[in-house]
Amino acid sequence: MHYSSPFGPRERLLDAVDELLDSASINGMGVDAIVRHSGAARKSLYRHFKSKDELFSTVLQRRSERWIAWFECSTLARSIVVSEQLVGMFDVLCDWLHRDGLNGCALLNAAAEMRNTCREIKLVTRAHSARLLEFVERLCIASGATNTHALARQLLVLLDGAITLAMVEGNADAATDAKEVARALVAGTA
Amino acid sequence: MHYSSPFGPRERLLDAVDELLDSASINGMGVDAIVRHSGAARKSLYRHFKSKDELFSTVLQRRSERWIAWFECSTLARSIVVSEQLVGMFDVLCDWLHRDGLNGCALLNAAAEMRNTCREIKLVTRAHSARLLEFVERLCIASGATNTHALARQLLVLLDGAITLAMVEGNADAATDAKEVARALVAGTA
Repeated sequence: MHYSSPFGPRERLLDAVDELLDSASINGMGVDAIVRHSGAARKSLYRHFKSKDELFSTVLQRRSERWIAWFECSTLARSIVVSEQLVGMFDVLCDWLHRDGLNGCALLNAAAEMRNTCREIKLVTRAHSARLLEFVERLCIASGATNTHALARQLLVLLDGAITLAMVEGNADAATDAKEVARALVAGTA
Repeated sequence: MHYSSPFGPRERLLDAVDELLDSASINGMGVDAIVRHSGAARKSLYRHFKSKDELFSTVLQRRSERWIAWFECSTLARSIVVSEQLVGMFDVLCDWLHRDGLNGCALLNAAAEMRNTCREIKLVTRAHSARLLEFVERLCIASGATNTHALARQLLVLLDGAITLAMVEGNADAATDAKEVARALVAGTA
């Protein structure tokens, strides 16, 4: 059964890659599988995208926007107290890790797989990281913390570390470990 | 020019994959490239390894052993004071990130790429993580810290976060951010 969508071939190709991305790596995903899963005609892939790299970087860009929007909303919804939002980020992360089968972050995984072999994907993963840092830094500023940039960087290291370690270990314990450190940092006792 | 080695075909295949691993992903590395780079005969690949997965997991296992041995020695050599070794780990990490072209950790990259598609590789990457935790925990115990397991877990999250973020950003700043958090945790002010 291929993926069915009321949208045109471009959207169907993007949705198909997005779905396949949870179980396959970028280099492990063949054009045949993408075309089959999308239900689009093979020639539409090269009509709508210059290359496989462009297709993948577009999918990753959409993932990044969706994830950041969801992460921001979920974090802000946890509390009206900013310092509690900063710590609560790690509960949001923990829920997400559980729900998404501990596959880790598609953007971090793509960066790890492609590294310097694809410039478009590198730029998308780097922009994702910068966007997450920006959100964390906005919260740090709102919390009235001193040295907000340093604090935001430290929290970003903890977020990436928790995602990576949870993916390797196959459980979300790392998010809890990271949360304890975040709590101390935000309380200013670190 | 293929990789030249005084060793037999098995060792040459392992060395070739080990070298290629810094510029290519696992799924991005074809059998042709491996055979060409090793200078071994194609048939020797399947004589010495049951599958490509076995070849890759053997290479990653060797990497893990080499990296952990190097990381332990370099960390222990930094100071005779254990609490300084725990913080100094992040300087060791920073040096390594600079030297190795910010490609990140081959084991973490393999885990991110392969996730649940290859059991052998998953087990090797998980064992690598457990071995690193064990070393950090030994240092935590020797430092006389209270709650050594929790501290070791937190330092492991920081190590993985620094490696991942440095790889994404293409610079080693994250190791310095992580070091500042580690310093506070080890000093017990966190």
